[in-house]
Amino acid sequence: MNYDVAIIGTGPAGIAAALTLGLHNKTIAWFGPAELSAKVGKSEKIANYPGVPMVSGQDLNAAFRAQIEEAGLTVIDKQVQTIMPMGSALMVQAGMDVYNVKTVLLATGAVSGKGFPGEESLLGSGVSYCATCDGFLYKGKQIAVYCGAPRFEHEAVYLAEMAEHVYLYTPYADTGAFPENVTVNDGKLKEIRAGEAAEGVFGGPRVNGITLTDGREIDVDGVFVLRDAVAPTSLIKGLEVDGAHIIVNHSMETNIKGVYAAGDCTGRPYQITKATGEGNIAAHSIIEYLREIEK
Amino acid sequence: MNYDVAIIGTGPAGIAAALTLGLHNKTIAWFGPAELSAKVGKSEKIANYPGVPMVSGQDLNAAFRAQIEEAGLTVIDKQVQTIMPMGSALMVQAGMDVYNVKTVLLATGAVSGKGFPGEESLLGSGVSYCATCDGFLYKGKQIAVYCGAPRFEHEAVYLAEMAEHVYLYTPYADTGAFPENVTVNDGKLKEIRAGEAAEGVFGGPRVNGITLTDGREIDVDGVFVLRDAVAPTSLIKGLEVDGAHIIVNHSMETNIKGVYAAGDCTGRPYQITKATGEGNIAAHSIIEYLREIEK
Repeated sequence: MNYDVAIIGTGPAGIAAALTLGLHNKTIAWFGPAELSAKVGKSEKIANYPGVPMVSGQDLNAAFRAQIEEAGLTVIDKQVQTIMPMGSALMVQAGMDVYNVKTVLLATGAVSGKGFPGEESLLGSGVSYCATCDGFLYKGKQIAVYCGAPRFEHEAVYLAEMAEHVYLYTPYADTGAFPENVTVNDGKLKEIRAGEAAEGVFGGPRVNGITLTDGREIDVDGVFVLRDAVAPTSLIKGLEVDGAHIIVNHSMETNIKGVYAAGDCTGRPYQITKATGEGNIAAHSIIEYLREIEK
Repeated sequence: MNYDVAIIGTGPAGIAAALTLGLHNKTIAWFGPAELSAKVGKSEKIANYPGVPMVSGQDLNAAFRAQIEEAGLTVIDKQVQTIMPMGSALMVQAGMDVYNVKTVLLATGAVSGKGFPGEESLLGSGVSYCATCDGFLYKGKQIAVYCGAPRFEHEAVYLAEMAEHVYLYTPYADTGAFPENVTVNDGKLKEIRAGEAAEGVFGGPRVNGITLTDGREIDVDGVFVLRDAVAPTSLIKGLEVDGAHIIVNHSMETNIKGVYAAGDCTGRPYQITKATGEGNIAAHSIIEYLREIEK
């Protein structure tokens, strides 16, 4: 599947970019929740978005969804696991599918910190962001699942069908119903631990347990981290960041050719208007870049 | 009159900034046409402004006006002539009034080029942007008036009451009615000329005529240039620009302390979404700056 651009994220930055790129007839693989940004959805009142006075986040998301549909744009409701430069193009893996794209826009939202200790370093060595992709590896095994939002619970249920036992941790109360082999929120996940042996796919150490905030240690063979925003550095290797923020120039270019970023992931202010503005700029830079490489 | 911030311009960038600064209880002197951006108003359909699908420029401006009113913000419908740093603050002159402000946001829109040859160098020495301020200087004299939009015609009429004769030039057809001492569009204004003598207020040369595109020369004592966007370099001395665009960093700071810029005046893409995004960022930077200086 070949596309001009992959947009990672369906928040305000991704929306602004998609509208502009669609208008310019670019082919778009647009990844993220079709429900759009949960962060926007949770805003009680937005008082400073020009053109839409005193709107609730839910109403603004509804307006965005209607506009996306009217514009003929579609969202691929999948989480992207990996982005890899392949010659002059890029390869985007989401679920079990691979997309070949000329450019990527990272509009992944703000990440609070760097994830759990061990999360980034053990990604692919027992840490996974994708139940569908990696669940089968844990048949009859013990796993931990961090479920960042109710919308990921079905993935945890799916994992419980595979694994012998699932230790589930959620940052929210009122979780849904789970099969009997799931232990729900008995403690809080603090850290992902690795064994000494070099058993990981990439020759390094591999997950062998987790530590909870109360100090208990639980042996597991794998940890699934399911949440909306993943640290962009775990999506693409070599991306220049400043703390949790992707470094961009005025054109929203990152240090990697063909890769752009916009919205909360580039830094404060964490504001819808700022995010849409950057999405718009990024879209124009991408259009310009596509024009250049197609010469 | 003391304010936290002066916003120069009532287009999308100015609006986004004003909404955010108002929300943070900053006092704002906001200058520009109360009708808002004529450029927005002239847009037939805007297809990529997130949250407001396929809107006409007139409808979007109407939505902006309603939102501004709802937010309790008011626009001072005057053109700013000069901004001058005064110690750690800034002085803004508009019409006959002077405003003392801690910060300035330039949201003046895109300027096509640098104005007429001679315009910037002869500003204050026979070139004026303000009929109310400087009209009385030309009682019984010959003047030229460049009227950039119909909304400035009443200023030309006012000048015709003062001056003996007015040579009027407009970039549009269908001008309104003018007194008998006004010559309307007999030729096109090309250049503002100066005499040899050092008669200007600042000791330099002073306006003594204009040249038309057909080569004719007309002797005049002054030239009034009436238009929405004036080159930002003629508003404030020492402002760093790249061609017609103000140079800003990621925080929308210019090279002058306390002076910020946002929207079309900082460069392409000339898009409403980009402009509102930059206005939002600038507002947050200004809030941060005010917090710093008030420590």
